Amino acid sequence: MSLTLNNIVSSLQRSGTFINSLIAVLTIGGQQLFSSFTFRCPCQVGKNFYYGSAFLVIPALILLIAGYALRNQMWTITSEYCCSCVPRGRNISPLERSLACLRIFSITGRALVAPLTWLAVTLLKGNYYECAASEFASVDHYPEFQNVTASKREEILAGFPCDRSTPSNVILVRDEVALQHRYQSQMLGWILITLATIATVVSCCLARCCSPLTSLQHYYWTNHLHNERELFEQAAKEHSRLLIGQRIKKLFGFCPGSEDVKHIRIPSSQDW
Amino acid sequence: MSLTLNNIVSSLQRSGTFINSLIAVLTIGGQQLFSSFTFRCPCQVGKNFYYGSAFLVIPALILLIAGYALRNQMWTITSEYCCSCVPRGRNISPLERSLACLRIFSITGRALVAPLTWLAVTLLKGNYYECAASEFASVDHYPEFQNVTASKREEILAGFPCDRSTPSNVILVRDEVALQHRYQSQMLGWILITLATIATVVSCCLARCCSPLTSLQHYYWTNHLHNERELFEQAAKEHSRLLIGQRIKKLFGFCPGSEDVKHIRIPSSQDW
Amino acid sequence: MSLTLNNIVSSLQRSGTFINSLIAVLTIGGQQLFSSFTFRCPCQVGKNFYYGSAFLVIPALILLIAGYALRNQMWTITSEYCCSCVPRGRNISPLERSLACLRIFSITGRALVAPLTWLAVTLLKGNYYECAASEFASVDHYPEFQNVTASKREEILAGFPCDRSTPSNVILVRDEVALQHRYQSQMLGWILITLATIATVVSCCLARCCSPLTSLQHYYWTNHLHNERELFEQAAKEHSRLLIGQRIKKLFGFCPGSEDVKHIRIPSSQDW
Repeated sequence: MSLTLNNIVSSLQRSGTFINSLIAVLTIGGQQLFSSFTFRCPCQVGKNFYYGSAFLVIPALILLIAGYALRNQMWTITSEYCCSCVPRGRNISPLERSLACLRIFSITGRALVAPLTWLAVTLLKGNYYECAASEFASVDHYPEFQNVTASKREEILAGFPCDRSTPSNVILVRDEVALQHRYQSQMLGWILITLATIATVVSCCLARCCSPLTSLQHYYWTNHLHNERELFEQAAKEHSRLLIGQRIKKLFGFCPGSEDVKHIRIPSSQDW
Repeated sequence: MSLTLNNIVSSLQRSGTFINSLIAVLTIGGQQLFSSFTFRCPCQVGKNFYYGSAFLVIPALILLIAGYALRNQMWTITSEYCCSCVPRGRNISPLERSLACLRIFSITGRALVAPLTWLAVTLLKGNYYECAASEFASVDHYPEFQNVTASKREEILAGFPCDRSTPSNVILVRDEVALQHRYQSQMLGWILITLATIATVVSCCLARCCSPLTSLQHYYWTNHLHNERELFEQAAKEHSRLLIGQRIKKLFGFCPGSEDVKHIRIPSSQDW
Repeated sequence: MSLTLNNIVSSLQRSGTFINSLIAVLTIGGQQLFSSFTFRCPCQVGKNFYYGSAFLVIPALILLIAGYALRNQMWTITSEYCCSCVPRGRNISPLERSLACLRIFSITGRALVAPLTWLAVTLLKGNYYECAASEFASVDHYPEFQNVTASKREEILAGFPCDRSTPSNVILVRDEVALQHRYQSQMLGWILITLATIATVVSCCLARCCSPLTSLQHYYWTNHLHNERELFEQAAKEHSRLLIGQRIKKLFGFCPGSEDVKHIRIPSSQDW
């Protein structure tokens, strides 16, 4: 039973779907939590747009940058292939170069999951867009706005996202404008989701078809990179401990953790 | 007891019914959750149809694409048999080709479970269809709509899915139109379910009858594919670890995990 | 205590009663849930019958087909004895043929549990039948319907299942018609249950009496089928692992799990 579960979990992890789903779910949860605590539209002329846009765009940008920065591989590839200030002694073959492109491509895909989820969820929910777009609603054709001065009208429009401060005769207009903005926001969300899906499918197909590796080779290569990293880290750790152990033995006359403490010595000031 | 449970679970997993049911149940739950949070019909002329259709069709399309993309097998088969940009050194026998068709067929079946469930549930529930079809209701025969201008009539029809803004004399008409749309939506849902069931049965019969394999051969072949994958992964892992071990030994002078650390060396900057 | 429980559970499983009861209970629960959410009679001329019939018959048909399709044994028997496109090299003896009939018979019994439960529950509940039959009620003998045109009468009859839109002078007639339909529906339900019970008893008796096997032979035969399956699966697994092991040895130069890693080789791109 637990073996079957293990198999399912490990196959999920390997295919990358599991991690992408986890990122998306965490983003959705974070968005709900964040939005319910902090978002309150200012409802003042000239501020709604900046407030709503900031909540829409800035978290998405931060998630994008974080998505890139959190991947160590990105740094490795960048410093290996792009930085010209690192001296290098070996040439890069075309196969290596196209494999590096494939990896940058895959990292970009992973980094885009969180910001696109943020944008899609906020647009489908609609309250950020409603706040940002409230001042730009076209209400010329409503009789309630015929004999209202421009500044008063702006004020009423800015007050739409909040329940307070709306004159009682424009409550019906407010409801209609709210439905209209929600419609625009959700349609934008659907368009974004559709475009992202199409882009994902097309790029995946291209990557698979024009990859220099067959499917089995691709599996072997991914696994190989993982093992290389792991074994190198293990070897580097042991190597460095051995070297330091030798140096400490020279200084103090014994190794930390060993039982053999006969040749203990007090280091002279020269040794330091 | 636990052995019996194991047997039941493993036989469910093998037959694919368990996974299909899980996908269907998750889709239904997600639809209920999603619909209650985000769906609010705009009730404005010219927008209802696009809004309702977007909520009906786009999630189904995305679920379909996700169903295909999540299956790694799909990529393997596609790149092995369809991509012409991959050079290959071996010929494909007719048996192999028809087995690949069988697998594509089975993957398509699995990928269609979620979108069809989405469509069936939303059509049986009926509120998306009600919103999308509200503007196209035929109300010529009602006396309430005799002396109403065309634009005013469109406006009233678009406002039907929302409770607000309906004149009191057409409330009965609204209820009848709502029942009519719900009838159409649910009948479409039943027709979809019936067609899907018939298609499933017919295609399963065809696949079984005209398969180049008997039932026992089919079992052996599925099992063989699974074992092939498993043993290849195991071999690839060991092979890559051995290769990397040799390279690390060249660099540091010892293998990680081995006791033999006599020939430890400090790598020069040339080695990196 | 737990041993007794185990015995009870395993004997329930063996007799098939446990699974049949589970299917019936799940069907009843699903029907209640489904009906309360989605069923709303359209109450319009010419639609009631199709709507009510669709809700009565289509789920039963789908449950029947699902019941057949979910049983793997069905496919095995069908493809072994019925498909003429499979070439076969052995003749089928009369005993084998009658044993196959016995198994098809038992699978049919299991597949009929869910649809019959659905039909019985919906008929005993009566609201689907009430909707479907509303237009066909005979109301010629009521004085309220003497001087009413045929089209108006159809409209009133179609509106009976809904509470709204019934003229106040025919409310008593509506209640009488509703009671009549509920009577018809529930009597049909009882007749169905009685016939199903009699059919089950008679067919079980016939199957046992006219079976080519005695009771002990039947036990031996069931056990034999189970063992055949089990041993075949075990042999197929070992056979396929041996074959794949040879192929991997050719590619990588060693077998996974073996200690002999002297002849390790790096596969060229031709090998993949």
